[in-house]
Amino acid sequence: MRDGRVLSPAAVPVDHLALRRHNLAVVVNRLRADGPRSRARIAADTGLTKATVSSLVAELVELGLVRDGELERDGGIGRPGQTIELDGRVCGLGVEIRPDGVAIAALDLRGTEVIARHVMLDTAGIGAERALDAVAEAVVAAATELRRRGLRIVGLTVAVPGLVDAAAEMLTHSPTLSWREVAVVDGLSRRLTGQVGPVRLENDANLGARAEYATGAAAGCDLVYLSGYIGVGAGIVVGGALLRGADGYGGEVGHLPIGDRSHVCGCGRRGCWETEVGLGALLREVADPGDPLTDMSAPVEQRLAEIRRRAELGDGRTVRGLQAVAASLSIGCSMLADLVNPRVIILGGYFAVLSDFLTPAVETELDRHRLAAGPQGCRIERSTLGFAAACWGGAHIALETVLTDPASTADTAVQTEVLGGTT
Amino acid sequence: MRDGRVLSPAAVPVDHLALRRHNLAVVVNRLRADGPRSRARIAADTGLTKATVSSLVAELVELGLVRDGELERDGGIGRPGQTIELDGRVCGLGVEIRPDGVAIAALDLRGTEVIARHVMLDTAGIGAERALDAVAEAVVAAATELRRRGLRIVGLTVAVPGLVDAAAEMLTHSPTLSWREVAVVDGLSRRLTGQVGPVRLENDANLGARAEYATGAAAGCDLVYLSGYIGVGAGIVVGGALLRGADGYGGEVGHLPIGDRSHVCGCGRRGCWETEVGLGALLREVADPGDPLTDMSAPVEQRLAEIRRRAELGDGRTVRGLQAVAASLSIGCSMLADLVNPRVIILGGYFAVLSDFLTPAVETELDRHRLAAGPQGCRIERSTLGFAAACWGGAHIALETVLTDPASTADTAVQTEVLGGTT
Repeated sequence: MRDGRVLSPAAVPVDHLALRRHNLAVVVNRLRADGPRSRARIAADTGLTKATVSSLVAELVELGLVRDGELERDGGIGRPGQTIELDGRVCGLGVEIRPDGVAIAALDLRGTEVIARHVMLDTAGIGAERALDAVAEAVVAAATELRRRGLRIVGLTVAVPGLVDAAAEMLTHSPTLSWREVAVVDGLSRRLTGQVGPVRLENDANLGARAEYATGAAAGCDLVYLSGYIGVGAGIVVGGALLRGADGYGGEVGHLPIGDRSHVCGCGRRGCWETEVGLGALLREVADPGDPLTDMSAPVEQRLAEIRRRAELGDGRTVRGLQAVAASLSIGCSMLADLVNPRVIILGGYFAVLSDFLTPAVETELDRHRLAAGPQGCRIERSTLGFAAACWGGAHIALETVLTDPASTADTAVQTEVLGGTT
Repeated sequence: MRDGRVLSPAAVPVDHLALRRHNLAVVVNRLRADGPRSRARIAADTGLTKATVSSLVAELVELGLVRDGELERDGGIGRPGQTIELDGRVCGLGVEIRPDGVAIAALDLRGTEVIARHVMLDTAGIGAERALDAVAEAVVAAATELRRRGLRIVGLTVAVPGLVDAAAEMLTHSPTLSWREVAVVDGLSRRLTGQVGPVRLENDANLGARAEYATGAAAGCDLVYLSGYIGVGAGIVVGGALLRGADGYGGEVGHLPIGDRSHVCGCGRRGCWETEVGLGALLREVADPGDPLTDMSAPVEQRLAEIRRRAELGDGRTVRGLQAVAASLSIGCSMLADLVNPRVIILGGYFAVLSDFLTPAVETELDRHRLAAGPQGCRIERSTLGFAAACWGGAHIALETVLTDPASTADTAVQTEVLGGTT
C-alpha cells in the first residue's frame, strides 16, 4: 500500500472476493468523508482504475447505498461529470433506555439526524419485561414513520446504563435501572421481527464515546467520554476502537472506590465515585426533599436549568454542591488521563449542561497532577450532543456494517423492499 | 472472507500488490502458529491455491524468512512432502534500561530466545549520555555474537521505565532514572548505525504486556501487566493492541493518587500508588538503612530471595510489609479491573517473585469489589517471564514488521548480507 500501512493482523488470507468487498467499503467511506463526486474523481482519489470504480459504483447502486447526484461543476473545461452520492434513504437506529424514559434517534448514511423522539417512562419502576414492551412500541412507531418517509433501516442499537455482556448480548447488571440479567437483544428481537434489521446492545457511555468519535469536538481522537446522569460511566476510544474489555465491562468508572467512604452506593458498597459525582449526589447536596429539583417526573433538562439559574444567582448551597462535584470529578478525570492518555476528556449528560461550573476545576487538577504535559496535552470538552449522544452512537454502530462491508447489506435491501416497498 | 470478518477500517484501497503482501504475511503467521508443514498443507489450511502458496514461499525463501524443513511424515500413504519452516536465523533484539543495569535479549522468528545478557550499571547516576554509550556497547557486543552465530537482526526495541513520547521517539520523563527529555532513539541510532536495523522506543510495562500477550499465561487475552520494580507501570492490551493513548503515555499507574497522602513520591507529589507498592516502598517497610536488602549494587533477585526467606521464617516486620503492599496492590488492581475489564492481571517484576504473598489479597478484593462476575471473571497470574519480560516484548516488537509485512524486510536482508555476510 502506498502509505506503508499493512492490512489487519495477518491471520486470514485475502482472495479476490474479499478484495472487492473491501474496495466497495473504500468507495462508500470516501463518499461519506468527502461528499458527492464523479467516478473519475473517486478513481483519482483512491488510486483504483476508472473501470473498477464504475463496477463498484454499479454494485453499490444495486445495494441501494449510493445514487446519482448532481452534475459536477468544478469550473473546469469539458463537459460536467455525473456525481455519485450516498443514498440518504439508508438509516441506522439508536434507542436509549434511561431510568426515566426512552429516547430514539435515527441517522442516515451521511450522519444526518432524520428522527429524534423521547418518551417519559419509569423504566426502573415497571421492570424489564414491561419496559421492553414500551421500548418496542416506541421503536415500531419510529420505524413506521421512517418507512413512510421512504427510509430503509439497516439496524438498531440499544443503549443501557450498566454492564453489558457483549458475548451473551445481555444486560448483566444495572444499578441505575435496578435490572439484572436481562436478555435485551433477544427480548427486543422477538418483539421487533422484520422491523429494524439486526438488534445490538451496548453500554450507554460506550455509545456516547462512539458518537463523539464520529462527529463531536474530539472526532477521530483518542478520547474518554463521561456519561453523567443518575449513574456515571466512561466510554473509552483508543486507536479508533472502543475499549470494551474481555466481557464488555470496560470503562466501569461509576463504582471506582475513590469517594468518601461515608457515602453508601446503590450497588451496596461505600465510596463509589458515582456517590459523589452522579446526578443523585448533586441533587442531595443542593435540594431538600420536596424541592421541585427532586421531582423525577419532571424533564431532567428543566431541573438542570433550575440548578443553573440558582448557581448564577450565587445561591450558596448550589455553588457549594457544584464545587463538591467538581472536586471529585477532577480526581477521577486525572486518573483517567494517567491510565488512558486521551487527547480529550468529554463531559457528557448533566456534566455538559453544567460544564462551565465544573471544567475549570478539572483543568486545574489535570495541569497540577500530570507528570509531563504531552506534546498536545489533554483537553476537557463539553459534549455538544447532549443527552442524545448514546442514541447517536447507537445509530452509528447500526450503520457500521454498511460502512465496513457494504455487500453484507444485500439481505436487508431485499427484506425491506418486501416490507416497506420503498427501495 | 469465510468468517465474515472485514479488512481493516476501509480507508485505503487494496490493489493486487497489497493483496500479495498480505498473503505473504498469512503464510509466515501460519508457519509461526502451526509449525513446519508442506506447501499443500498450507494451501489447504489457508484456502489459497497451491500455485499461489508455492509462489509466496519462493518469495519468502528469497527474503530469507523461510526455508526447507524436514520431509513430512504424517503416516499417510504416498510420497512424503517437503515441509517449509521459519528461518531460525532471523531475530529481533530487545534492550531494557533499568535504574541499576541494562538487560538484552534476542528472540528468533519462532519466539525462541537466542541470547540473554545483563550488565550492572548505575544508569540513573551516570546520566543519559554515558548510559547510552554503555547501552550501545552492550548491544554491539550482543549483535556481534549473534552475527557470528549466523543470525540476522531485523530491529531493536529499547524499554525504559517512564513516559515515552511515541511520535517524537523520546523518553519524556522517567522519575526512576531521573532522566528528562532524552532522545533515546536518535542517540542509539547514531551509536548503532548499520548494526541492528531500525531502533524503536517503548515503555517497559507496555513491552512486558506485549511479551505476555505473545507467549505467557494470558496469551491472546485482554490483559493488564504490572511491572513491579522501583517504579510501577501498567501495560494494557485490549483487542490485541497495546493501549498507548494519544501521546504514548497510557497505563501510567505509578502516580495514580490512590495512596496515603503522607507518602512523598519521587515525582514530587504525595500519595502516588508507587509510594506504597514500588520496591522502594517495600524495602523501607522491611529494612533499616545498612540492612543488606538496601544495597542497590547487589542483584535484585538476590535481595528478593532474602525477603522471601525472612517471610517464610515468619519475620513479623517482613510479613507486615508484604501485607501493606498487598493491600494497596489490591485497590489498584480492582480499579484496573473496573476500567479495563481484562481477562487477566499479570503481576510482573518483583510482584511475580513474591506473588504467593500478594495474590490472595488481590483475589479477595477483586471478588469482593466487582459489580458482577463476568462469565469468566478476571484472573490474577504471576508472570513467568520474570525480569526478562520487557526485553522479550521488545524483541517481539522488532519482529512484528516481519510478521505483518514480510516484504518490507527486503532491505534488511540486503544490508545485513553486506555487513555480516551471513545470509
